[in-house]
Amino acid sequence: MGKYSKRSEDYSKWYTDVIERASLAEHSDVRGCMVIKPYGYAIWEKMRDVLDRKFKETGHSNAYFPLFIPKSYLNKEAQHVEGFAKECAVVTHYRLKTDDDNQLVIDPEAKLEEELIVRPTSETIIWNSYKKWIQSYRDLPILINQWANVVRWEMRTRLFLRTSEFLWQEGHTAHATREEAIEEAERMLNVYADFAEKYMAMPVVKGQKTESERFAGAEDTLCIEALMQDGKALQAGTSHFLGQNFAKAFDVKFADKEGKLEHVWATSWGVSTRLIGGLIMTHSDDEGLVLPPKLAPIQVVIVPIYKTEEQLQQITEKVNALADELKAIGISVKFDDDDNKRPGWKFAEYEAKGVPVRIAIGPRDLENNKAEVARRDTKEKEIVNWDSLIQFIPELLDEIQENLYRRALAFNQENTTIVDTYEAFKKALDEKPGFISAHWDGTKETEAKIKEETKATIRCIPFDAKEENGKCIYSGKPSTRRVLFARAY
Amino acid sequence: MGKYSKRSEDYSKWYTDVIERASLAEHSDVRGCMVIKPYGYAIWEKMRDVLDRKFKETGHSNAYFPLFIPKSYLNKEAQHVEGFAKECAVVTHYRLKTDDDNQLVIDPEAKLEEELIVRPTSETIIWNSYKKWIQSYRDLPILINQWANVVRWEMRTRLFLRTSEFLWQEGHTAHATREEAIEEAERMLNVYADFAEKYMAMPVVKGQKTESERFAGAEDTLCIEALMQDGKALQAGTSHFLGQNFAKAFDVKFADKEGKLEHVWATSWGVSTRLIGGLIMTHSDDEGLVLPPKLAPIQVVIVPIYKTEEQLQQITEKVNALADELKAIGISVKFDDDDNKRPGWKFAEYEAKGVPVRIAIGPRDLENNKAEVARRDTKEKEIVNWDSLIQFIPELLDEIQENLYRRALAFNQENTTIVDTYEAFKKALDEKPGFISAHWDGTKETEAKIKEETKATIRCIPFDAKEENGKCIYSGKPSTRRVLFARAY
Repeated sequence: MGKYSKRSEDYSKWYTDVIERASLAEHSDVRGCMVIKPYGYAIWEKMRDVLDRKFKETGHSNAYFPLFIPKSYLNKEAQHVEGFAKECAVVTHYRLKTDDDNQLVIDPEAKLEEELIVRPTSETIIWNSYKKWIQSYRDLPILINQWANVVRWEMRTRLFLRTSEFLWQEGHTAHATREEAIEEAERMLNVYADFAEKYMAMPVVKGQKTESERFAGAEDTLCIEALMQDGKALQAGTSHFLGQNFAKAFDVKFADKEGKLEHVWATSWGVSTRLIGGLIMTHSDDEGLVLPPKLAPIQVVIVPIYKTEEQLQQITEKVNALADELKAIGISVKFDDDDNKRPGWKFAEYEAKGVPVRIAIGPRDLENNKAEVARRDTKEKEIVNWDSLIQFIPELLDEIQENLYRRALAFNQENTTIVDTYEAFKKALDEKPGFISAHWDGTKETEAKIKEETKATIRCIPFDAKEENGKCIYSGKPSTRRVLFARAY
Repeated sequence: MGKYSKRSEDYSKWYTDVIERASLAEHSDVRGCMVIKPYGYAIWEKMRDVLDRKFKETGHSNAYFPLFIPKSYLNKEAQHVEGFAKECAVVTHYRLKTDDDNQLVIDPEAKLEEELIVRPTSETIIWNSYKKWIQSYRDLPILINQWANVVRWEMRTRLFLRTSEFLWQEGHTAHATREEAIEEAERMLNVYADFAEKYMAMPVVKGQKTESERFAGAEDTLCIEALMQDGKALQAGTSHFLGQNFAKAFDVKFADKEGKLEHVWATSWGVSTRLIGGLIMTHSDDEGLVLPPKLAPIQVVIVPIYKTEEQLQQITEKVNALADELKAIGISVKFDDDDNKRPGWKFAEYEAKGVPVRIAIGPRDLENNKAEVARRDTKEKEIVNWDSLIQFIPELLDEIQENLYRRALAFNQENTTIVDTYEAFKKALDEKPGFISAHWDGTKETEAKIKEETKATIRCIPFDAKEENGKCIYSGKPSTRRVLFARAY
């Protein structure tokens, strides 16, 4: 194990090691693009399935819009083009040819009249369609989600957290009233928060972004912010109230019941494969990945310990019966009877992969009708009567799910510091990194200065921030509520 | 209805009308790219879910590889680069900037050293990863599938059938032996055929492609071919035995049990959103889409007919109870009580959307405890006792699924003509388009001549073609079995 970094010594290297040991993903040879390996993709599939069900339960349908966006579309919404990063993949040609040396080269004849941008986000291409779909109030609301790949060129990348291509979902909705759109943006933020807490076991703070951290083109950006083990914050999901900005840019109007034409109100909201980075950095330890049971591709692994073929056969019979029972109640089980690997090797392997529960059964267990059950979160082991496993295991999975959340919540609370002076603020950032709750005067200038001097940004104005009179830690000007600062991924 | 084309009069226009009326998809303003609308995407989701389950049952896992392929990768496998269409989207720059007129332009400083190609298929980028993953026979087989978007620039596009961007799955497997890879390619072709027949109710012919129709880089291409209502064939899925071609191009070797290094054997296989085009053109009619129940997003629609609020309330109570019972046995039900639309309008709408079963219930039905049940495939109606609907409906859905398959199979057989002369071949093509079973001398030259003169291609050498002595319809040279010709999409 010496080759792997400890979490306490080099968090960044530890993070990369966890990903490598669990075979989640790797860098490809294409700058900034990752390969999501089967085990990593299986976690994404579980996340996607839960979120997709929640989107459908809240009335949304999936659809699919083009990968390419004509350059001129990006020009249409002024704030969007101004604020949005311009690091995009630009398609300029549509054909290759082989040259005299039999090498592939661009065919200069096949130059596009207008360049196409690989979507960094789809507001513009989608609102160009909505223009055709919306005439009257009867066509509203439109509640659509898209699962897609997007590209934002990145020079410095980190697996899952920041890659040039990533997978995500983007909801794009259209409404007849401002109120309804705001309600939708809030509803979807709550869906994200619920998913983060109940499934990822990752506590989040719900809040509002400041103007400078807002999505380009939004009137209001809501977010969930999580705290990683190294005290850095992670923006885990955002939900935007777009006002009428895109409707105006793409001239999308509807006739209300009285026949009066009005611009449509909009939201958009998204989470991405970045969540997997958050999952890793919320729970994992020096032995590798720790997964909450609800998102674990394998919830229970069973490892046989035997010397003779006869023992293996007896164990296999018993295990198959149990595995069938567990599968019948929806628990995913793997029986690893690979004869080429020693039990100790398997134990370490499934720990690195974050499998929540391991059952080991050997010849003596067979005699006593028992098994050793180890839980990944606390690494505690227990001898359990074989016949009671069918009750014990589902209860243990629930307990692990809850324990992971409790543990992360306690960490979150312990690492949220309340400060009233800039000195205390800087001290906390250095000595006890985490969320810092402090008064701010509400100006861009102060926010920029603090960021410049400390690299800490305002993660959000929490929804649950109390009204309280205070003074901005930087300018000393009056403030009515605290905001949450942190250094962030 | 006058605005829509009849299937018998203008098949091509009829096809487009069916898509429009059912709100499946539409052209976007981006050349060749379509927007898949929610109802069309819901069909794709149903297809994807069934196929994904079948892939997993046969031991495959999903993963995700980069959208972009460095141009040099495409150069590595000679046949691949030679045979594969060079109509690709080429990314040359990674940044935009705003010029003096505040317009977005390419930043000339941000030119890529090596151009990136938006994947037209992923063999090259995936085998570049497999090189790192495979050292020994213990690493094999690798059984991976990817759900992704791909781009092949098309000048003439048709919704679902031929678009510049489309959605698909691509399986990419690596094996220790030739035999195992061939077995895999055959297994996945059978998965496709089973899916086409049992779920899409679309009969297919399984066979082998001729050398000239083979995938660029494959040693053998297996395919399923379906026959559309206009007598044109549709290649619905392909499964390739790639031999060691990509392993050699990317230098992927494994050590066998004796430690001897050998190149890895490969397959790849895929189906795409094109299947939705096949589904439409297998079953639909002048009233619109016809969907097999197993792929219908809505299997049963219930339309209330009422004059008073009280009647509607009585109907609603009855319907809700039934809908709950149907949902409990896995049947998707929609109760359309929209007060703004007349029942007749709704009937036409759900016919256009291909909903397999419609239940209408009015005041008299309420009195008699009955309902009118209409099936979409035959348009037959029947009065059914309300209490027996819970048995009647699932049986009817099964019957519709089977009937659609029987009907399509009969059409397929009626439109497969056996000919022994070139005269008869050309006559059949003109007068009774469909599959034509004929002898062929096995040469590229003859195949090319026939294609040039008649636009018919060899769809496949059917697996079930009997050994029989015959003469090539074109050259008169000896042949040992018949192949299947058709004009194709």
